[in-house]
Amino acid sequence: MVLQDRAKATRQAIIAGAAAVFEEHGYGKTTLAQVAEAAQVTKGALYFHFQSKEDLAGAVIEEQHRLVVQDAERILAGNRPALSTIILMCRAFGLRLVDEPVVRAGIRLTFEATAFGRTVREPYEDWVATMAELAARSRREGQIRASVDPAALARYIVASFTGVQMVSDVLTGRADVMARIEEMWAILLPGIIAEDWPGDPSELAGLVSGTGPDPVPKAAAPA
Amino acid sequence: MVLQDRAKATRQAIIAGAAAVFEEHGYGKTTLAQVAEAAQVTKGALYFHFQSKEDLAGAVIEEQHRLVVQDAERILAGNRPALSTIILMCRAFGLRLVDEPVVRAGIRLTFEATAFGRTVREPYEDWVATMAELAARSRREGQIRASVDPAALARYIVASFTGVQMVSDVLTGRADVMARIEEMWAILLPGIIAEDWPGDPSELAGLVSGTGPDPVPKAAAPA
Repeated sequence: MVLQDRAKATRQAIIAGAAAVFEEHGYGKTTLAQVAEAAQVTKGALYFHFQSKEDLAGAVIEEQHRLVVQDAERILAGNRPALSTIILMCRAFGLRLVDEPVVRAGIRLTFEATAFGRTVREPYEDWVATMAELAARSRREGQIRASVDPAALARYIVASFTGVQMVSDVLTGRADVMARIEEMWAILLPGIIAEDWPGDPSELAGLVSGTGPDPVPKAAAPA
Repeated sequence: MVLQDRAKATRQAIIAGAAAVFEEHGYGKTTLAQVAEAAQVTKGALYFHFQSKEDLAGAVIEEQHRLVVQDAERILAGNRPALSTIILMCRAFGLRLVDEPVVRAGIRLTFEATAFGRTVREPYEDWVATMAELAARSRREGQIRASVDPAALARYIVASFTGVQMVSDVLTGRADVMARIEEMWAILLPGIIAEDWPGDPSELAGLVSGTGPDPVPKAAAPA
C-alpha cells in the first residue's frame, strides 16, 4: 500500500514536471532528460512509469481532461439552471487555464497532437455532447429561446471558447482570459436568451467573474 | 528580367512545396529534403532562397497573410454595409482554408509558432483592428445595435472564428468549415443586430454560403 502510494506520488510528480516542460517548450523540443530534471526523478524512475515522450504527452492530456471533467461534474451537481451551468463550466475551465500548468500543457499538447499522431476528437466531442444536452435542457427551462438549435449552439460554444482562450494566450499569455470569456458571454447571451426572460443578460455573463447573481435554486444545496 | 522571373517562380514553387509538407507533417517533423522534393528543386536552389526551416516557415506565414489580406481588400472595395463586409471576409477566409494549401499551412504554423520562436501577435492584432473599425462603422450605419462595443465584438469575432475553423479541422478535416462559419453568424447576429433593423438575421448569415441577399448598394460598383 505504502509502496503503491509512493509510486502514485512519483507518477504525479512526473506528470507535473512534464506539464511544466511541455508548456514551455512544446512537444517537439521537450526531452525526457528535461522532464526527469523538472520532476526531480531519475531517468530510470521516469522510464518505469512512461515508455516514451508520446506516452508522457498522452498522460498530461488525460490528466488535463480529468481535472476539467471533475470541475464540470461538481458544477452539474449544483442543480442550477442549465444556462448558468454552461457559463460556470466555461468559468471553471478558464480558472484552470490560469492556475493549473497541467491544463495549460494539456491544451498546448492537444493543439500539437498531430505531431505525435494522436487523435484529439474525443475531448471536443465530449464537450459538444455535454453542452448540447445542457442547451436542450435550458430551452425546456424557457431560458434559451426556442429558435436556437441546441446542437448548433453547443458546437459554437465549444469552438468559440477554444478560440477565445487561444487568442488570449497569443496576445496576453492568458492574462486577460477571464475578461475575454465574460465578453464572449456578454455578446452571445442577448441573441440566445428567450425574449420573455425577465433577467439582464449582462448579469448572467457576470457569472464568469463571480459578480453575477447566484442562480442556485433555493430548494437545492449549493455545489 | 527573365532570370528574375525565373527566380521568383522558383521561390513560389518552394513556398508551395513547403506549405504541402508543413501542412502534413507540422513544423517539427518537416525536413528541408522533403520540401526540396515536394517543390521539385535541388537543395542548392532551396538554400539559395531560404537559409533555414524557420525562414521557410516565416515565408509560408507571410504568403498566407498576404493572400487573406488581399481578399479582405477586394471585399472592402465593394462598398457594402460594414456588417456584410465583415461576414464576407469570414467567408473568404473560410474558402481559402478549403482551397489553398498555403493558407492551411500558414494557420498550422501560426499555432506552432512558439516552436520556432516567432511571435504571431501581429496578424491577430491586424484582424482585430480591421474588424473593430468595421463594427464601429456598422453601428454608425444603424445595423449593429448601440449597446454593442465595437472593440469587444471585434476581439470576439476574431477569436471565435479562429476556434471555429480549428475545431472544424480537428473534427472533420475542415469538411464542414463553411457550414460552421455560417452557423457562427446565425447564432451571433440576433444578439448584435439593431432591434429596429428590418431584415432577417439568418438571411444575412446566408452570405457565408452565398445564399444571402446581395447587399451591394445600387450606387456602388460590385467588387
